[in-house]
Amino acid sequence: MTDRPTLSDLERGTPFADRHIGPRPAELDTMLAAIRASSLDELAATAVPDSIRDGADGGEPVASTLPPAASETEVLAELRALAARNTVTVPMIGLGYSGTITPPVIRRHVLENPAWYTAYTPYQPEISQGRLEALLTFQTVVADLTGLPVAGASLLDEATAAAEAMTLLRRAGKARSPRFVVDADTLPQTLEVLRTRAEPLGIELVVADLEGGLPEGELFGLLLSYPGASGAVRDPSALIEAAHERGALVAVAADLLALTLLTPPGELGADAVVGTTQRFGVPLGFGGPHAGYLSVQEKHARQLPGRLVGMSRDADGHPALRLALQTREQHIRREKATSNICTAQVLLAVVAACYAVYHGPDGLRRIAERAHRMAAVLAAGLRAGGVEVVHGEFFDTVRVRVPSRAEEVADAAHGAGIALHRIDADTLGIACSEVTTVAHLDALWSAFGVSADAAELDAGTGDALPAGLRRESEYLTHPVFHEHRSETSLMRWLRRLADADLALDRTMIPLGSCTMKLNAAVEMEPITWPEFANLHPFAPEADAAGTLELIADLERWLAELTGYAAVSLQPNAGSQGEFAGLLAIAAYHRSRGEGHRNVCLIPASAHGTNAASAVMAGMRVVVVATAPTGDVDLDDLHAKIAEHGSALAALMITYPSTHGVFEARVREVCDAVHEAGGQVYVDGANLNALVGLARPGAFGGDVSHLNLHKTFCIPHGGGGPGVGPVAVAEHLAPFLPGGAGKDGQSVGAVSAAPYGSPGVLPISWAYLRLMGVDGLRRATLTAVAAANYVAARLREHYPVLYAGADGHVAHECILDLRGISKETGVTVDDVAKRLADYGIHAPTMSFPVAGTLMVEPTESEDLAEIDRFVDAMIGIRKEIDRVAAGEWPATDNPLRGAPHTAACLVDKWDHPYSREIAAYPMGGTPGVHDRKVWPPVRRIEGAYGDRNLVCSCPPVEAFSS
Amino acid sequence: MTDRPTLSDLERGTPFADRHIGPRPAELDTMLAAIRASSLDELAATAVPDSIRDGADGGEPVASTLPPAASETEVLAELRALAARNTVTVPMIGLGYSGTITPPVIRRHVLENPAWYTAYTPYQPEISQGRLEALLTFQTVVADLTGLPVAGASLLDEATAAAEAMTLLRRAGKARSPRFVVDADTLPQTLEVLRTRAEPLGIELVVADLEGGLPEGELFGLLLSYPGASGAVRDPSALIEAAHERGALVAVAADLLALTLLTPPGELGADAVVGTTQRFGVPLGFGGPHAGYLSVQEKHARQLPGRLVGMSRDADGHPALRLALQTREQHIRREKATSNICTAQVLLAVVAACYAVYHGPDGLRRIAERAHRMAAVLAAGLRAGGVEVVHGEFFDTVRVRVPSRAEEVADAAHGAGIALHRIDADTLGIACSEVTTVAHLDALWSAFGVSADAAELDAGTGDALPAGLRRESEYLTHPVFHEHRSETSLMRWLRRLADADLALDRTMIPLGSCTMKLNAAVEMEPITWPEFANLHPFAPEADAAGTLELIADLERWLAELTGYAAVSLQPNAGSQGEFAGLLAIAAYHRSRGEGHRNVCLIPASAHGTNAASAVMAGMRVVVVATAPTGDVDLDDLHAKIAEHGSALAALMITYPSTHGVFEARVREVCDAVHEAGGQVYVDGANLNALVGLARPGAFGGDVSHLNLHKTFCIPHGGGGPGVGPVAVAEHLAPFLPGGAGKDGQSVGAVSAAPYGSPGVLPISWAYLRLMGVDGLRRATLTAVAAANYVAARLREHYPVLYAGADGHVAHECILDLRGISKETGVTVDDVAKRLADYGIHAPTMSFPVAGTLMVEPTESEDLAEIDRFVDAMIGIRKEIDRVAAGEWPATDNPLRGAPHTAACLVDKWDHPYSREIAAYPMGGTPGVHDRKVWPPVRRIEGAYGDRNLVCSCPPVEAFSS
Repeated sequence: MTDRPTLSDLERGTPFADRHIGPRPAELDTMLAAIRASSLDELAATAVPDSIRDGADGGEPVASTLPPAASETEVLAELRALAARNTVTVPMIGLGYSGTITPPVIRRHVLENPAWYTAYTPYQPEISQGRLEALLTFQTVVADLTGLPVAGASLLDEATAAAEAMTLLRRAGKARSPRFVVDADTLPQTLEVLRTRAEPLGIELVVADLEGGLPEGELFGLLLSYPGASGAVRDPSALIEAAHERGALVAVAADLLALTLLTPPGELGADAVVGTTQRFGVPLGFGGPHAGYLSVQEKHARQLPGRLVGMSRDADGHPALRLALQTREQHIRREKATSNICTAQVLLAVVAACYAVYHGPDGLRRIAERAHRMAAVLAAGLRAGGVEVVHGEFFDTVRVRVPSRAEEVADAAHGAGIALHRIDADTLGIACSEVTTVAHLDALWSAFGVSADAAELDAGTGDALPAGLRRESEYLTHPVFHEHRSETSLMRWLRRLADADLALDRTMIPLGSCTMKLNAAVEMEPITWPEFANLHPFAPEADAAGTLELIADLERWLAELTGYAAVSLQPNAGSQGEFAGLLAIAAYHRSRGEGHRNVCLIPASAHGTNAASAVMAGMRVVVVATAPTGDVDLDDLHAKIAEHGSALAALMITYPSTHGVFEARVREVCDAVHEAGGQVYVDGANLNALVGLARPGAFGGDVSHLNLHKTFCIPHGGGGPGVGPVAVAEHLAPFLPGGAGKDGQSVGAVSAAPYGSPGVLPISWAYLRLMGVDGLRRATLTAVAAANYVAARLREHYPVLYAGADGHVAHECILDLRGISKETGVTVDDVAKRLADYGIHAPTMSFPVAGTLMVEPTESEDLAEIDRFVDAMIGIRKEIDRVAAGEWPATDNPLRGAPHTAACLVDKWDHPYSREIAAYPMGGTPGVHDRKVWPPVRRIEGAYGDRNLVCSCPPVEAFSS
Repeated sequence: MTDRPTLSDLERGTPFADRHIGPRPAELDTMLAAIRASSLDELAATAVPDSIRDGADGGEPVASTLPPAASETEVLAELRALAARNTVTVPMIGLGYSGTITPPVIRRHVLENPAWYTAYTPYQPEISQGRLEALLTFQTVVADLTGLPVAGASLLDEATAAAEAMTLLRRAGKARSPRFVVDADTLPQTLEVLRTRAEPLGIELVVADLEGGLPEGELFGLLLSYPGASGAVRDPSALIEAAHERGALVAVAADLLALTLLTPPGELGADAVVGTTQRFGVPLGFGGPHAGYLSVQEKHARQLPGRLVGMSRDADGHPALRLALQTREQHIRREKATSNICTAQVLLAVVAACYAVYHGPDGLRRIAERAHRMAAVLAAGLRAGGVEVVHGEFFDTVRVRVPSRAEEVADAAHGAGIALHRIDADTLGIACSEVTTVAHLDALWSAFGVSADAAELDAGTGDALPAGLRRESEYLTHPVFHEHRSETSLMRWLRRLADADLALDRTMIPLGSCTMKLNAAVEMEPITWPEFANLHPFAPEADAAGTLELIADLERWLAELTGYAAVSLQPNAGSQGEFAGLLAIAAYHRSRGEGHRNVCLIPASAHGTNAASAVMAGMRVVVVATAPTGDVDLDDLHAKIAEHGSALAALMITYPSTHGVFEARVREVCDAVHEAGGQVYVDGANLNALVGLARPGAFGGDVSHLNLHKTFCIPHGGGGPGVGPVAVAEHLAPFLPGGAGKDGQSVGAVSAAPYGSPGVLPISWAYLRLMGVDGLRRATLTAVAAANYVAARLREHYPVLYAGADGHVAHECILDLRGISKETGVTVDDVAKRLADYGIHAPTMSFPVAGTLMVEPTESEDLAEIDRFVDAMIGIRKEIDRVAAGEWPATDNPLRGAPHTAACLVDKWDHPYSREIAAYPMGGTPGVHDRKVWPPVRRIEGAYGDRNLVCSCPPVEAFSS
């Protein structure tokens, strides 16, 4: 009986880590053998420098207070218990977050569908046409409704979109004034973020009551709200004109739903319009994620931050979509970038676009009318009952004055299951929406002690919209907004789009630096539970008890895993975490009377966002050279430290490096910076190589941002949502953003919602709870083993750039194609596109080194899939050899021709390689086991589209071939 | 203000009916114009005979007590409220229903994925390879674990599987005795169903305690249980041998999970093994749906009822799967059929197969060990505490004797959240499972007033399995059970399989008689909520309050809609509903002293199941001729009535007829039967043409079965689950099956669980709640309009068989290809396969008339999709013309070559038609809008596979091309 598993072994069952981690023990042995390691522990000991490795030299154990791994069943039960502690009320708080109905067809077929949520950012447009089309639809919705022609493919939220608009107006306009005037009737969280963002850039924020016109003096820009935070709708025309007369540009924060009824800001002269698309079917999620939007006039298109989808054409001349004007982006412009926006909110933008497609213009107008009429009738009833309604003209939000009774009324409403906006002791705000019913009005009247009859009032009450601002222009006239009104049709449209894309549900996505690992179903399930999904960010704290506990757990666990003292989950993207971390460093220096420290050292190989964030935080970027080994050039580092002396604010490094190497001397680097009075920012992009092995906070980092959408399993969603918590050492904790910092010392808000994007935090919570520290450590080492295995197998076919002192890479490896390209004309682009013919998503192209591919297999891929990738790369190498040998010309070969659509194989064929080589380079597998995936378009010409910018849904004729 | 929508209009929003119904008003106008109708009401008045139409001639209004249509949000809220009234406990009741964990990856990617759940039965194997592969895997699991080589692709549940085994043994064996001996230690619900099924067939059921050996006398068959219902595990070898010696065959009802530890019945000499696969990850669902199984020895393969998946090869010689030996099936054998099994439980069989793939043999063994060890330790603790444990050898179920204390202990356990099996005042059954934990054992001991230490007992307690019955043989050795252990790998396998199939999420499925309409996401969501999914069928009634209310609502609504007095939801497939209805008729006649009435008249065009069910119900089938119009030949009917006189038991007719026609004289038909003392069975297969328009119970039917998986939106699941309620007039109500009938008069149980498959009933409940009577009526008429539109557009290209008096068809139309086939050699098969090249699923082939296609577009398809089908059919007709013109030979043309795989287009091509015609017959649409779907295999040779029967996963080499 001794070799029998014990009852508790049996009860434990298969640990989730065994499902999350791809390779089976025997596969891992194969991988370890190929890299000459006898075990994961030995790999850890050789690959990860002793100087940083936890447990080496009797170092401290990692994160010992994390709970031990739990089963999927246990974790679901715990999450259900947390969910049960939330109280979901009818959300009538408003403030930029509205009740909305996510149509079940969209919830199931988008939010709960891995084909959508596991996709990557559409940098490989040929295998991303589905989400590009959905995003083009999103852009069309925003452009049509705001009345401005060019809209981006989503920003992080309304507040950051407003901040982006602020800087856009500054650089797009001619005014040299540093003043930016903001209507006092702006959402408070937008004001907060504007303050955070304005200060380091030297922008003077003037918050003014604009009822009497613009304040005196010069200004470069103006932000109006339409409707205002109070609910009031005011005609912005005169203010826009006045600002223009003074040479300033104007942004309007607008409610997209209201714009179905109100004249759009674009028609009233606005230069930019910003806002959120949350109320287009996106769950509240206690504040996010939701897609923010920003639209501009044509002439400002090239100033637009973030991603912009545009039409172009493919090699066969067919229309095709891709990201337009990419030269604007931070990953190319680095310290010359004007925004650090990287991750957007693609998944949520897709939901909003689908919502518009499903409802169409008429449906949206009806929803807007519902919200408006409910508000109008509510106000009429209150007025009739003697309650003072502050504004006469509003869209969906009614502000009422009930001297000394606000608390009492709000409590009564809460008792009836409705949450109101408690403005002060005398004032309440009540926001109507798609979910408001007559029963809610009755409950509210009763809470106010008023009796009224909705139907009677309805008949006798006019609209409360300014008569002169009734929208006359059409919108959403494109057929896509008229063709999919039945669920069947919408479902099939969504399937068609999803099928055009290559996501994790069909292939590994070995994108270096992006960590495309499993997003397990069990982690994803809770995010669409109503208790988590339908919570308003400004709900009374007690209503969010479950989510708040989940957030506290996650902050604690992440702090433990990274070796820091405190974590703020507010940054809703990695870039925002970077920005917040750098602000904290700046504030720390200031707090010590060293506000002059403003130099930020950044290695040449850093992510582009690093430099962009540093600039946004008011720092001066100084580049540190890279040594031939790929490590930071220590001599240059010391020289730069010496050169900038007391101006040194910080060093930003990524660890392991963006070259995918565990730099041995990282402690030395940190020490040097600290000795010079600087702070060390460790970029957490590559944390997937560290979790459970080493902690940045323990080996020299003062601050890090993490990417929950990389290391901690939040799916990439096709380009967002991301979550970028910032983690700091004790001395920086008071400066954390949002509520995590110390009053008076916090750097302020970096995103609209107090906790950023809590709607997706159950994913990371579940992942940590399921894995436990041991599981996490095993995942990390498996990821490292997998990268080394890829390097070992591919080394003889492609040079592998950079390795650590012991010859190992970390969790990714760089394949150097520069020599091959020079010799044969075959480029990294050719290889990346050719991989699509093999049914595999390309690795990261030309980052951090131009002309290379960076491969990160992650721990979730099993050996068969890794080998499929490796074999494809070897197959491609053989094809390159045939080009090199002159067998195929450089201009006509399967690489240059890639990717090949099924349509291009039919009939005419005049290439020197066969159709079979084009389509089935590894030979076909007959039947259901075939892994062939057909790209919907051929190679896309980027430049053509940039010359002929089309960024909203084109007329149907454009698609006729 | 007068033309403004009212507040309540706005609150109502877009009715769900507008999402369920495909055509927009303008599209409907186009359709109506094509069929020369001015409105749906006019269509109703002309197409549906006044004699049956509700409301015509001041007839009664339909179903006025159905609640008015509610919104999706309201319906989800109501369902959540119902769900909240259920109390989910830890299920330790056993009795064939075990606690199990549905892995979230399987729940999300199969149960919640329309690619799986909206697929049809794989009668078109070329576009069904995914689910065929999953079913082959299921068969392999069953075959391997039971130790018998041939297993079918699922049966309805364990009890009906046992009944099928009973009749199989009878016809497969040589014994002429009518006696079937059943172990007294058999599940009570299996005994009940055996009784129901044995009686009309003249089988004498002998339930006997077999501890002392077989009872005296002859027998044709024996059913043993392994383990028994009591939990006891007894070696069946001696009884099997004894039965064989008397010339009888033996079936064993076995617990599939137990067979990972116990010697399989096949190795002990059993001729057949039956059971359920519920505990392989299939939610309890208050009783179903779950997949039953039946495996047999090779020599009995051709006797197997239900569907059997087998290997064959396609036109290119590649291995391919399809349903094998279809000649056995009821739709071909009709009154010669030996089983009426039609719908199976494909979706649930897929889940069970995935569960085995995910866990593999080692994982399954561990799960079995967990269940067993928990039981062993539980028993040890009870014994040590002085509680009498009845059996010494058991697998997972412990029977205990607690004189007079059973109720008290069970209540205490229930208080701790655990449900036990209350056998009698002195006896309890406790079943362990995958979900049992040590904490549960502690709670149970405490409920018994015993204190025990699990770990200590574990160390000191041996297994409780008979030593001689330890399984030695291997199982699940095929690679598929070893390759997908990580979630990533399983997810991709599932996606690959799903992509091979054409389901409703990609194309209309215009299958006449099958009503492939929308299965809305909102209807599907609740079925995976734990409160509905995790309910044990024998849970205390109070624990199921919500589900019971839902069932009562549904029974009432269905009765109202069909014009009957009472409904039983117990039949878990249409065939079972038929059987139950016919039994009720027989019992009614008997109750009136007319037990001699045994002739069942069935029109020549009837569904094959009609005749098979009649035979199973002990009736003699007499065929009534069809008139040239397609209607029942009234002369022949009168002649047959006269001929059989007082032997007439019933007439079975389908209305509208299987020819898709509203027969004008149906009342006359019913009257004639009634006058002769017969009962009228109206087959509800075509109820989608009647709901809201006419009620079978009002125009002459005495009994009908409905197909919730046709008319009432339960998805087809790739071939099940189905639900086939039986609805009866007042005088037949006492004879309804299960609890719905009257004690002593009920025909008994027709399925294992009291309410059949309640797990999927929320779907139909939601549909009715969402549509309201008006929405249902509009859906019905839209379906009729759509069928007439198809007929109108295709009439000039294909003869349309049959129409009503006014020239209208009902909700489907028959395209007659017989002339075309004779002339050109192009067959219905060719057309059906060619449709796959067009990306469309074929209509019903050769039913009810050989050489025809029956088209049913349903109300859910919009005009664009209907036109896509019509245009494809016209395109095919043009292709046929080219064959007719001799342009293409009859043996080599795009029709005969269909379907074309992508692989077959690459390189070699020596056909007289181009690749483009083969693949893109309607021309391609570039990019993401393309509707092209590539079949994974070419035309499959059925006969080859039947000659070389392979019905479990073949060795990998079979797939090498």
